[in-house]
Amino acid sequence: MENEEEPLLSRPSVPAMDNILGVHFTVLDHGFVRVIDYMGNDDAIVQAARVSYGTGTKSVREDEGLIRYLMSHQHTTPFEMCEIKIHVKLPIFVARQWIRHRTANVNEYSARYSILDEEFFVPAADQLQQQSAINRQGRDGALSAEQSERVRELIRNEAVRDYANYISLLDQETGQGIARELARIGLGLNFYTQWYWKIDLHNLLNFLQLRSDPHAQAEIRAYAEVLLEVVKRWVPATFGAFDEYRLGAVNLSRTSLELVRAMLQGQDTNHLRSQMSRRELSDFDELFGMPSSDVQRSVPTN
Amino acid sequence: MENEEEPLLSRPSVPAMDNILGVHFTVLDHGFVRVIDYMGNDDAIVQAARVSYGTGTKSVREDEGLIRYLMSHQHTTPFEMCEIKIHVKLPIFVARQWIRHRTANVNEYSARYSILDEEFFVPAADQLQQQSAINRQGRDGALSAEQSERVRELIRNEAVRDYANYISLLDQETGQGIARELARIGLGLNFYTQWYWKIDLHNLLNFLQLRSDPHAQAEIRAYAEVLLEVVKRWVPATFGAFDEYRLGAVNLSRTSLELVRAMLQGQDTNHLRSQMSRRELSDFDELFGMPSSDVQRSVPTN
Amino acid sequence: MENEEEPLLSRPSVPAMDNILGVHFTVLDHGFVRVIDYMGNDDAIVQAARVSYGTGTKSVREDEGLIRYLMSHQHTTPFEMCEIKIHVKLPIFVARQWIRHRTANVNEYSARYSILDEEFFVPAADQLQQQSAINRQGRDGALSAEQSERVRELIRNEAVRDYANYISLLDQETGQGIARELARIGLGLNFYTQWYWKIDLHNLLNFLQLRSDPHAQAEIRAYAEVLLEVVKRWVPATFGAFDEYRLGAVNLSRTSLELVRAMLQGQDTNHLRSQMSRRELSDFDELFGMPSSDVQRSVPTN
Amino acid sequence: MENEEEPLLSRPSVPAMDNILGVHFTVLDHGFVRVIDYMGNDDAIVQAARVSYGTGTKSVREDEGLIRYLMSHQHTTPFEMCEIKIHVKLPIFVARQWIRHRTANVNEYSARYSILDEEFFVPAADQLQQQSAINRQGRDGALSAEQSERVRELIRNEAVRDYANYISLLDQETGQGIARELARIGLGLNFYTQWYWKIDLHNLLNFLQLRSDPHAQAEIRAYAEVLLEVVKRWVPATFGAFDEYRLGAVNLSRTSLELVRAMLQGQDTNHLRSQMSRRELSDFDELFGMPSSDVQRSVPTN
Repeated sequence: MENEEEPLLSRPSVPAMDNILGVHFTVLDHGFVRVIDYMGNDDAIVQAARVSYGTGTKSVREDEGLIRYLMSHQHTTPFEMCEIKIHVKLPIFVARQWIRHRTANVNEYSARYSILDEEFFVPAADQLQQQSAINRQGRDGALSAEQSERVRELIRNEAVRDYANYISLLDQETGQGIARELARIGLGLNFYTQWYWKIDLHNLLNFLQLRSDPHAQAEIRAYAEVLLEVVKRWVPATFGAFDEYRLGAVNLSRTSLELVRAMLQGQDTNHLRSQMSRRELSDFDELFGMPSSDVQRSVPTN
Repeated sequence: MENEEEPLLSRPSVPAMDNILGVHFTVLDHGFVRVIDYMGNDDAIVQAARVSYGTGTKSVREDEGLIRYLMSHQHTTPFEMCEIKIHVKLPIFVARQWIRHRTANVNEYSARYSILDEEFFVPAADQLQQQSAINRQGRDGALSAEQSERVRELIRNEAVRDYANYISLLDQETGQGIARELARIGLGLNFYTQWYWKIDLHNLLNFLQLRSDPHAQAEIRAYAEVLLEVVKRWVPATFGAFDEYRLGAVNLSRTSLELVRAMLQGQDTNHLRSQMSRRELSDFDELFGMPSSDVQRSVPTN
Repeated sequence: MENEEEPLLSRPSVPAMDNILGVHFTVLDHGFVRVIDYMGNDDAIVQAARVSYGTGTKSVREDEGLIRYLMSHQHTTPFEMCEIKIHVKLPIFVARQWIRHRTANVNEYSARYSILDEEFFVPAADQLQQQSAINRQGRDGALSAEQSERVRELIRNEAVRDYANYISLLDQETGQGIARELARIGLGLNFYTQWYWKIDLHNLLNFLQLRSDPHAQAEIRAYAEVLLEVVKRWVPATFGAFDEYRLGAVNLSRTSLELVRAMLQGQDTNHLRSQMSRRELSDFDELFGMPSSDVQRSVPTN
Repeated sequence: MENEEEPLLSRPSVPAMDNILGVHFTVLDHGFVRVIDYMGNDDAIVQAARVSYGTGTKSVREDEGLIRYLMSHQHTTPFEMCEIKIHVKLPIFVARQWIRHRTANVNEYSARYSILDEEFFVPAADQLQQQSAINRQGRDGALSAEQSERVRELIRNEAVRDYANYISLLDQETGQGIARELARIGLGLNFYTQWYWKIDLHNLLNFLQLRSDPHAQAEIRAYAEVLLEVVKRWVPATFGAFDEYRLGAVNLSRTSLELVRAMLQGQDTNHLRSQMSRRELSDFDELFGMPSSDVQRSVPTN
């Protein structure tokens, strides 16, 4: 390393991110997200892409256009060139969904080493909904104020009792002094844990697309929504392209595409519709603002 | 695909594995491991290695020798050429440790879609130990029979009450009919979940080395021990090499290595010993059956 | 492992795959693909999904419907439960594109250990095309028969000379006996290498979507086309769903989606069109069989 | 994101790294390594570890001790919390070894889009060695000055001719104007490519351990040596621990460990030695500075 000279670069930075480093953004009743560090910005994505495409990108006149092109054509590797590290406090049942995203780095608080605080999640009254009849993994339909309060009380009491048992098992004075790794096994899934989580931007966008979706559980969606705001600050051009080509986009199947073509050209669509399932037709009609297929289908099927 | 002919190969198989496909091996009080499928065997590892090294492996006369060579020289890619798929039932706190192994495929039972059974883990009396004073993540020292039973009762009662609350929240008759994804948040970490888990042999060996270690929590170690037996059946030559070069092996640091050399050559070791921490010296002396370093160190070293 | 009994399962198999194990499917002038082993089939995907969704999948009446549902809703983990291992012989420049798919296992022939054969790729006459003027990474426009033959001759002569140099550097009699790892550095990127490659079905589908695309280089596309046939044999229901929801599908951006809606409802589209780039409009119009946007745009839009 | 306030953190930085950002460190004849950006430092590793172990780390008095503990106990996740991004120019045959490290992000110059420069690697005279007789993948034994020059000339001429053919195939004036993706296939493996490469510190250390090893090809080792210097500047405490517990450490197999024990305790070692292969014994004796085992073994062992 003899040919060292003056530094020729400085680290890319984003003032809007520097302004929020370490700041707690509250999520749910006791959770938070804090940005700890980040690497890269919109320019770093453009720079990496220009390494790949060399002189081939001269024709893309401006950076935002290049970012939109990369996003819309699934040229995903330049987005991997940015990285973010956050500190998150989250209920264990949310952590169990979150950890399924494997291309990330994690350091979680260990309840084998240390003692957990008495912090647990109780759903807000307006989040306490009934099992959806049509969506097997969803919720639907509000409770009365009285019902909600009863449920919240039940969840709260259970957690308080869990925690009292936990402390009593740990206590060396009053008897057992059970090992921490065992004492914690009775705590509920709504107790809070925390971790440092580091991920590249491409994989973060995958996480956000899945976890900000209406089918995601509302509690993890609450974290995704905060992180969407963080991404908007961090890489605004990328966020715009992500919104246009992924968040707001739809995947049209081969048959749906043919159906749109036929409709636009005023052709008969019965044959194509007959190839689609009930559920697909209903999704299709809703997507394009057609009269509900259920109505259509509620006609002859009796 | 025009040049199709007779099949030239048949799939490698292992009768000792075929004999146990689907069989439940009980772990803990309600858990199990079942092998669902596997790909490859010791021969497949050798075959893949011979692709890499081509004629270069002619000199390694026999397959077992080649496998030992690969293992001892960390040529890990041929071991990735085998794959196993298992069905596991395990407490959630064990699942949370297990899932940290990222290079694997998982399909877990979803408590958003379906209702969990009333099955939870209660430690056996002989597993209920106190917090270790010397190992911050360990357990140590037995309870009296009476103490154990009291703790087991407490854990059991807590889980039964958790489950009763769960069912009552779900129940549409008696009132709330809360969404499954919310009703389950009060269940304890000792409730059982289950999953299909698929992993290549190299990454399985990494898992087993970490999770069969005495520092791993006893409950995940119980699963690792069953899986070690499975590996022994599946790829006996690989298992032998794994035992010799990894399970039973130690990593000697630069200074420890110099210390061994000095001792073997009858040289003075004080200088080297002074560079090692108390903990390292004590580990070193225990490893090589020396008198405890604590004793040595309490004697003036001049 | 005491509770061993009768095997309860046998390994899932696919006769149409068993029939082609080890068979060479020729690709390019000297390349091939051979299936060595596989794990799982369409049923195994369904089985894994039913573990996840538990009783939640009872309503999906049949397996093919479930597979289509999983594919269209990007529930990708059940497809990871199948695995395939193939032996491939391929030019080095193709191998360099192929290896970018990171979630796979590879054992490649090592030219540090062993000597390469004199086998190199020369493009067929009908593949020898000129640089595309519109696609910076494509080819376009045929050469004359005479031109093609001249180019093929040039490529062939260069490779023959490369190989003669390689052998002469290696030769211990005629002089140098240079190390294999150095002697090979002058060989061209069109020389063939070979490897064992193992990948799960989900990641294979990702590979196939990218590498069977018209924008992929024709030489890797030739391998993707053989592998598409293999997948069709192996997991026909999955292949059907892949074709419907991915290969033949399109991603409609937020604005394109609104544009389709507006067109279907006979609304004015000028405002939406003005938000799209020239390239996007031209792609959009081609997709839906509209008259070329270039024509439209050359006409005043008032 | 309403609760935004003052930033509470600033990004961790390392002045010794800031001083070299963008600086070219020359490697081989035309290659280089340039650091583009980095995330984290030794403190960030400690901070992440303290999240995991919570109050459990209070007893480790100082940060360097904690880093040494993490390294020696293979607690690898805190090292994943640092990330580095570099720009590398390297011969294609080196790139092919490098890319095998899968847990990294890459943007490579594309010869489908852009035209390569006439830059190729020619080994320095002192690197031009013969095939090792004892190490199937190594080199050994110098050439005469005259021989070296002859070989260098041959490699250089071959590359110059390759490049002239490349340019002539691309040239639209003189005839063919062949597509770039085809014209490049005759270029040798010693031509230079370049890429942006981003990796976390844990995986970088894995890369460095393998690629700075004497068994690695000298040309990739040249890059590893520059990167070792970069790591030493970036995270000096981690580098120290890496040197002690990994670079300078050895893995003692189960039998070797018993052999050391027996020797230290003056016991008979014949039985243990008979269980080890010739190669293992010779490695063992060399490691501990014993007289060569070959000599020992030529003497009757009774």
